[in-house]
Amino acid sequence: MRSPLMLGKSRIEALSDGVFSITLTLLVLKLEVPELMHHSSNAEMLQQMLGLWPAFATYVVTFLIAGGFWYLHHVTFHFVTHVDGVLVWLNLLFLMFVALLPFSAGLMGHLLVHPVSQVFYAGNQLAIAALLNAHWQYARLRGLLDDGEVVRVRRLSWRIGLTAVFFAACLAVAFEMSLRA
Amino acid sequence: MRSPLMLGKSRIEALSDGVFSITLTLLVLKLEVPELMHHSSNAEMLQQMLGLWPAFATYVVTFLIAGGFWYLHHVTFHFVTHVDGVLVWLNLLFLMFVALLPFSAGLMGHLLVHPVSQVFYAGNQLAIAALLNAHWQYARLRGLLDDGEVVRVRRLSWRIGLTAVFFAACLAVAFEMSLRA
Amino acid sequence: MRSPLMLGKSRIEALSDGVFSITLTLLVLKLEVPELMHHSSNAEMLQQMLGLWPAFATYVVTFLIAGGFWYLHHVTFHFVTHVDGVLVWLNLLFLMFVALLPFSAGLMGHLLVHPVSQVFYAGNQLAIAALLNAHWQYARLRGLLDDGEVVRVRRLSWRIGLTAVFFAACLAVAFEMSLRA
Amino acid sequence: MRSPLMLGKSRIEALSDGVFSITLTLLVLKLEVPELMHHSSNAEMLQQMLGLWPAFATYVVTFLIAGGFWYLHHVTFHFVTHVDGVLVWLNLLFLMFVALLPFSAGLMGHLLVHPVSQVFYAGNQLAIAALLNAHWQYARLRGLLDDGEVVRVRRLSWRIGLTAVFFAACLAVAFEMSLRA
Repeated sequence: MRSPLMLGKSRIEALSDGVFSITLTLLVLKLEVPELMHHSSNAEMLQQMLGLWPAFATYVVTFLIAGGFWYLHHVTFHFVTHVDGVLVWLNLLFLMFVALLPFSAGLMGHLLVHPVSQVFYAGNQLAIAALLNAHWQYARLRGLLDDGEVVRVRRLSWRIGLTAVFFAACLAVAFEMSLRA
Repeated sequence: MRSPLMLGKSRIEALSDGVFSITLTLLVLKLEVPELMHHSSNAEMLQQMLGLWPAFATYVVTFLIAGGFWYLHHVTFHFVTHVDGVLVWLNLLFLMFVALLPFSAGLMGHLLVHPVSQVFYAGNQLAIAALLNAHWQYARLRGLLDDGEVVRVRRLSWRIGLTAVFFAACLAVAFEMSLRA
Repeated sequence: MRSPLMLGKSRIEALSDGVFSITLTLLVLKLEVPELMHHSSNAEMLQQMLGLWPAFATYVVTFLIAGGFWYLHHVTFHFVTHVDGVLVWLNLLFLMFVALLPFSAGLMGHLLVHPVSQVFYAGNQLAIAALLNAHWQYARLRGLLDDGEVVRVRRLSWRIGLTAVFFAACLAVAFEMSLRA
Repeated sequence: MRSPLMLGKSRIEALSDGVFSITLTLLVLKLEVPELMHHSSNAEMLQQMLGLWPAFATYVVTFLIAGGFWYLHHVTFHFVTHVDGVLVWLNLLFLMFVALLPFSAGLMGHLLVHPVSQVFYAGNQLAIAALLNAHWQYARLRGLLDDGEVVRVRRLSWRIGLTAVFFAACLAVAFEMSLRA
């Protein structure tokens, strides 16, 4: 019988850090520089900048949520000792939804109050959280984790699970609001 | 007689992880946020989103194919112990076609049913697969691989070779369809 | 009592290097290729290129300032031995303002002489400097630094502090000029 | 007397790999998907694609030149053992011109036959080559290189120097052509 191929974790970490850093940085492209002449008054200019507030708010919120997912991903890989093919694919799916965030953030920034945007945005975050859980539980069940950290691992499972519950609740609220609208 | 310069593999891995992560993330830029007013109805908004399905389908398919190529590249470098100049250049050519994917994906997303787009897209994937094979066979023949993994190395050769065969078949089908159109 | 989780520093360094390298490279997207025909005269073409000088100047200045912040970040992490959750979050906030630079640079490039642009730009740089100080002082106070480098650490504290003072002065000047305009 | 601070080389390598991989990948954004209907004929579609050949040629040439610079940078750092502040700043200036390549490539792609574009493009490549030489000679003179590789180091100096001579010649030809036009 053949043992499965075990790979180091450094390259999936590098790919993930790359996708996260690009996603975080692409969010800024949704902030468009206002089209103004350089002789417009301070008041006009300020008004234009203030008109960008939905895009700014979306930038900050999405950056912090994505940063939080990166941090949780970082912590899970702190305990992972090596990876197999299934874990790589779960991570690729996870990254597919992370990379979708600039689109979802664009939907929110341009169309802030629209219920369909909110459903899409919350759904995107929930998909990321769900795949983070799948990746973590798979690594746990397949014994890809460092032993001897039982307490910390159990606590982290709760923390990641609660993230998914939180975004599921967000999605439910957004969906309910979209029905009323 | 001078022995050729042997380099570590970490930087070509880092450049590859960078190009892949950016390519994967740039794919999302082909998904344009619909131009709608925030007071448009849910039905209008949903219809706009559904109209994006070719772009979404292209995003998912291209992300998964590119992710698969990244994984195969990762596995080949698992066995590579050091690199020389030729291997670096084969990798740069490989990355040149990987970086072309957002363009090919854009052709597919905008012009989904057009045969010329499909020929171009399949040709791009075939070029990636062919250069992955060239890189792998070169490393194998020049003894740049870890010894003592003969069985796994042979299996991986098959797997990478079959990828090229698969995309050659896709290209043939796309080409044949373009003649009929 | 539970001791807090201590993480390695390699991944926050990797995420930071990613965000910095993307930010530095995205700055070039603010330089738009002039819309000219290939049969336009040399004089017309040169005039178009010279008309881009505010964008070029902003590119160079912002690249060098951001490069300087990257260098200071690099030097601080030279002394950091491990990270905790608070340090990760301070770094994510730091990166949030770094990633905002292409927007601020766009404001400067398009609207160079406008006082509101200058206030925004200086404010962005000050926020980066302030969070770099917060990250460094936190690491210092929590004992996350390498001991036995007391002199260098003290000198670096001064250097980072002066950076914040410099950008605070820039902001004050820009603000004062915006009131006069 | 204080000895200067010596830093590891891994982070400047990581930043460089990041800037190169993003620059290489951004080149593709200059290839615009033709605006065509999906019911246009194969002949129309092919003609549109062939009309993109200047952009494709620029993509391939720029990718290969930039890949070559990355490779030379990789080889120089193979011999570097540690870095100081001046070497970091020389590298940041080097990267500033690398990151400018998508703009220069855009000038070439849109305005292929225009002499001013060619002067700018060759000037950009020469600046990259000159800064690569400056970085290498500085590292050599300050004793930042691995000893005992005298022959290889001397050969690499020639190779990098010739690159600068080649692009200086390109610039001279482009400049001479722009005067005739």
